[in-house]
Order: sequence, then structure tokens, then C-alpha cells
Amino acid sequence: MEQNNTVQTEHSHAPKTLIKIGITQGDPNGVGLELILKAFSDPTMFDLCLPVVFGSAKIAAYHRKVLGLETNFNIINSAEEAQRGHLNLVNCYDKDFTTNFGHNDPEAGHVAYVALEAATEALKNGLIDALVTAPICKAAIQSADFRFAGHTEYLCNRLGHGEQPLMILANSMMRVALATTHLSLAEVAGALTQELIEEKITLLSNSLRHDFLVPAPRIAVLGLNPHNGDNGTMGEEEKTIIAPAIAAATSKGINAFGPYPADGFFGSGAYAKFDGILAMYHDQGLTPLKTLSMDDGINFTAGLPYVRTSPDHGTAFDIAGQGIASEGSLRAAIYAAIDLYRNREADREAYKNPLPKLYHERREETGRGRFAPQQQPQSGE
Amino acid sequence: MEQNNTVQTEHSHAPKTLIKIGITQGDPNGVGLELILKAFSDPTMFDLCLPVVFGSAKIAAYHRKVLGLETNFNIINSAEEAQRGHLNLVNCYDKDFTTNFGHNDPEAGHVAYVALEAATEALKNGLIDALVTAPICKAAIQSADFRFAGHTEYLCNRLGHGEQPLMILANSMMRVALATTHLSLAEVAGALTQELIEEKITLLSNSLRHDFLVPAPRIAVLGLNPHNGDNGTMGEEEKTIIAPAIAAATSKGINAFGPYPADGFFGSGAYAKFDGILAMYHDQGLTPLKTLSMDDGINFTAGLPYVRTSPDHGTAFDIAGQGIASEGSLRAAIYAAIDLYRNREADREAYKNPLPKLYHERREETGRGRFAPQQQPQSGE
Repeated sequence: MEQNNTVQTEHSHAPKTLIKIGITQGDPNGVGLELILKAFSDPTMFDLCLPVVFGSAKIAAYHRKVLGLETNFNIINSAEEAQRGHLNLVNCYDKDFTTNFGHNDPEAGHVAYVALEAATEALKNGLIDALVTAPICKAAIQSADFRFAGHTEYLCNRLGHGEQPLMILANSMMRVALATTHLSLAEVAGALTQELIEEKITLLSNSLRHDFLVPAPRIAVLGLNPHNGDNGTMGEEEKTIIAPAIAAATSKGINAFGPYPADGFFGSGAYAKFDGILAMYHDQGLTPLKTLSMDDGINFTAGLPYVRTSPDHGTAFDIAGQGIASEGSLRAAIYAAIDLYRNREADREAYKNPLPKLYHERREETGRGRFAPQQQPQSGE
Repeated sequence: MEQNNTVQTEHSHAPKTLIKIGITQGDPNGVGLELILKAFSDPTMFDLCLPVVFGSAKIAAYHRKVLGLETNFNIINSAEEAQRGHLNLVNCYDKDFTTNFGHNDPEAGHVAYVALEAATEALKNGLIDALVTAPICKAAIQSADFRFAGHTEYLCNRLGHGEQPLMILANSMMRVALATTHLSLAEVAGALTQELIEEKITLLSNSLRHDFLVPAPRIAVLGLNPHNGDNGTMGEEEKTIIAPAIAAATSKGINAFGPYPADGFFGSGAYAKFDGILAMYHDQGLTPLKTLSMDDGINFTAGLPYVRTSPDHGTAFDIAGQGIASEGSLRAAIYAAIDLYRNREADREAYKNPLPKLYHERREETGRGRFAPQQQPQSGE
């Protein structure tokens, strides 16, 4: 098996193990399978990873046929059977299902749930290295088994150790994390506290360091109200909650700045000067991110012991089954999962056996010994 | 006077009366005067309009000196004395004032108020044709004389006939109107009602027809919650308030569509398919608008009997007095005031004596007879 999943890279003669990326099919009435089949119509994808789709072989065959897509897949019973160079599909649901593109259907939600559950188990058992989730319909998937606002909350419950997760959206232009995620707008202001914002700043800083390998990340924190509340005439949260949270993070050595009013921050291009941005609510962060660059955005759940990414769009019920959905964001999510998994490995390797710090290195912000050898063989641990 | 304010255009030998644009100086600790002096350093501006600044000659002279700007101005006592080819300044405040760039100062607020009040009077008395306001500091201007959230609310009170105003932000890419304007985020959801949204859709439609001369405007209405509330899992306002308001507007013959989730709407470029967009709150509309195009955005108060525009930025206290502020948005606001004033005149002219409608024209959406002569001389009304 191990032998089967290695590849010779151009730059090295050492065999490199391909990263096993688990991919859930998402809601079968949405665009998930279309995007997966399109993404793996490009054979170079198989040089980058070993894909393992979790879903229904029958439904995938149906989507393949009606959408006229030619990508083949390799039906298997467990991720352990996955083969290099193939689009492997772990058949998690073998009952008949009638695809009804664009419809909110509890049965479709159940299929999506079964696939997600199987992929999560495989991740926990080490059968896949990282997880990419195709979009689910949040209303359809709710059941006795699944009572969560979305993937992020479910995965934290199943995979986390009680940590708070952080939703980070990233594209080629910026990384935006959300202080609150899937809340109605009416609930946003009430959900924000100084402690929550400070915690999210810290999570973002840690993720930028250890997942994105930015040694001393600069973080911008957005305000909540128009014009930052204009000296309290339109809201006080900037003064009472956000600024104190930034000050507290700064006192812990995090480079956090703000709060910045959202419209001017994105309008002036200030976002380009920061490694990460903390937005107070969903649309505040996602609207400018998508406005600037729609097709390459990905969602990453920071703060989990496993790497999980997803495209930054939903089931796209309005265009499902038409064959016109762009696989760009799913493809970007797969690339990101590979990069983030490798970054975490490199980061762990770098920290494994650091040299004791020298006096002049004590103020080094990364926590990593600057001259610590990274490739040196470790003797008998 | 009339003779003095005419200009020969290249395309016509008929003398054309220059539009008199009143411009308030705004908060004297902000960038207002800098922007005005910079905008009129370009002599071609005087071919487009006859500018009348309302402010303090002493303060303007000080800003001119410390910023090293060479634009001259012509001090007058009333807008009636304004001369073509000059940057006229109606001296509204003759006391000494110490400019303290970037400071929130009630005295500065008072100077801004006096200038605004004088300009408003001139507009009411027909001494100027349209008004462009430089930014005020909303906290500094509050006093016994001025208890308003901003320019828009003040001008409605002083100039309106009880109509509700509508704040429209426009740049070269889109026109965005706001259902709620200067409210803290916590207050937004509670302020929205079906009636309010329907009223704003109607105001936007009317303004697009009669101010922007779009005969059958297409209007997009945004949702309030992330993903439009995802079938009610994150808020119900789309179903209970916004969709019914759109349906009511549609039943009155307005081409209103939506609600659309903000992130996908701007991300997919859908904004380009509409003549106007109604956003539910300030940052929802302004953040993507500014993200796409910062320097040419203008603010227009629709629903007033007079044309009033302003730049889409604030006092910029952080860079005031440094000479680095861009006059692009103020210049765009002046252009827009000229265009909107002319459009309103053309619109009134077109509707003055419409032909009775023919049978096949009854379904025409504009209310304007398609074949009505527009330039034909009208005989003895």
C-alpha cells in the first residue's frame, strides 16, 4: 500500500508519500459531485494528492451521466483501499436515491450526513490525512444525528478536544477570520465580548504562525459599527469591547491593530498590509473577500487537530445540475488542504528539538530558535 | 449677472448658464478645505460650474498656506456676488479660529454648522442650484442648533416636505441605496420593517428614473442575514420582511428582485446587472462599493426637492493637515451634482407636456410616452 502511494518528485530521488485527501460529496442535490468530477478531470491533480471521496457510488454515477462528465472513479469499501492515480470513492450509501437538483430534501441531507460521518471516522483513524468538505444544505442535514449550525461546529464536536474553532476564509489576496460565524445579524452584537474577541485574535495569531508559517503575523481587527461608531454616536462596542481586546492581545505579544471601520479598510487597500484580518461577523468579512476574488476562496477551520478546508460557497441550488458551476474554489480548497497539512508537518518538525535559546534570541517573536537545525537526523529518541 | 455666468460650449453657439454649485467647507479640523482647494486647482472645473464655497475666509487662508496650495479664492458676502472663473467663498464666519487638524472640537463643529446653515439658506432662496457638502465630524457638530445624525437628516428637516430621504452611494460600477443609514449594528435588525423596505425600494426606483434617467430600472434587494438566513436557520427577516416588500413593490410595477445574500451577490459580479441595489445597512452596501472603487464614490440624498451630493468619505482626521488627501471623491461629487441637476431639468422638461398615451404604449414601464417629442417647441401654454 505504502509503496503504491509514493511518487518520484523532480527535485528529489527520495520517494514522497502522497497526501491522502478525503473529500465529502456534500448535498447530492447541490453542486458537490459536479465540482469533484470537474476538479479531477485534470490528471495533474493525481500527482498532488491521493483523493478519497466519501459518498454514494450510485448518485455519483448519475451526476456523471446527466452532466456529461467523463471523469472515472474507483469504487472502494474503505479509504485503506485507495489507489494512486484514481479518483477513489468510498461507497457510504448504497440505497436508491432520486436526485432532485436544487431541492432542500431531508433524505439528501441524510446522504450528506452519512458521507461526512464516514470521512470524519477515516480522519480520526488516520486513513486520510486531511479533509475537504463539499457544501451541505444546512436545513436539509438537520436530524437527530446532526444538530449543528454547519460543518465547522460538527467537526469541532467530533474531532476537537474542547478547543474553540476559528473559521478562516482565505484567497490570494487576504485571510479573514470571523469572530462570529453563522448567526443572524440581530444576534451578532449581543454575541461579542472582549473575551471572545481576544480568544479569536489569539487563535488567528497561532494559526497564522503554525498553519500558514508566518513567523510574526500582523493582525487587523475590524470595528462593528459604521465608521467605528463615530465616537460613540452609533454604537460603543469599539470602545468597550474591541479596543480592550486588541490591547489585551498586544500585551501578550500579538501584533494586533485596529479597530478599523470595514468600508474604509477594504476601500483603501489596507487589507494588503496585514497577514490576517479578524471580522466581527460573516458578511463583514466575506463580502469584501468575495468581491475582490470569488473563484479562489477557501474556508479553513483553524484550531482543530486535523486539517479541514472547504470551498467558500454553498450548495448553489440555483445552478445545480446545469453543469455550469466552477470547480475553482473546490480545487483551491484541495490545494490549501495539501499546503496546510505540509505546513503543519514542517512546523512540528521545526519545533521537535529546538536548541536552547541564546541570550540575543530571547526577543525572537516566533518561539522558534532561529539557528535550530531543521534537517539534522535525530538520534535515538 | 446672468450674462457674466454664461459660457460658449464647443458644440453649441447658444450661451449656456453655468450651474451654481454651493460647497460647504465641512469641519475645519478635517480635510474639507484641502479637497476644495485641490479640486479647483484645475482651471477646467470653472468651465463646468460656478463654485460658491460656504465657510470661513480666515480658516481657508490658513489651510491654503500650511498645505502649500496655490488655488486662489474670491471672498464675497453673498452667493449673488459669485463670479465666473473664480473659486468664490461666502465668508460665513469671521471670528478667529485655531485649526487643530484631526481634533474633535465643538468650536470646529460650530464653524461647520454655520457654513452648512448659510448654504442651506442659499439653496432655499435659489442663490445656488445644488449643494455639495464636505465632511463634518458628527460628534463635534452636535449642539442646541444641530441635533441630527448627519447631513442627510439635517437637510431633510430643513429642505424637505416631510418626505423620507434615501441615501444613495454611487461610483462608476454601481449605485447602492441604504435601507438604514447611521445606526449601530445592534439596532439594524430591529429597525427594518416591510413598510420601510418597500418605501425605500420605491424611492430608489423613482430616483433612478427621474434623477439618473434610467427609464425602467432593475433593482436588486439584499438579504440581511448570512446566506439569506439559510432557510430560516440564521434569521427569518428574508422571509417575513424583505421578500414581502419586494413582492409588494413588484405588484406596483417596480422591477425589484431578490433578496440576494450580500457576499455572493458582489462576489459573482451580479451587481453589474442592476441599475440600483438596496442594502439593508451601511457597511453591507458601502464595504463592497468602496472595495471595488474607492476614489470616485459619491453620496446623493434622493427624495429631496434639491440636489445634494457629498464625497463618500469622512473628515479623515487621521490624515488631515498632511496634504495627502485625495480630492477624487469631492470632485466626483461636484460632477454628480451637475449631472443630477441637469438630469432633473431634462426630466421635468420631458414630462411637461406628454402626449396622450397610445394603446400599445400602455404597458410601457417608464410613464413617459415613447414617441413624445422632447425638443419640439411648445406653443402657448
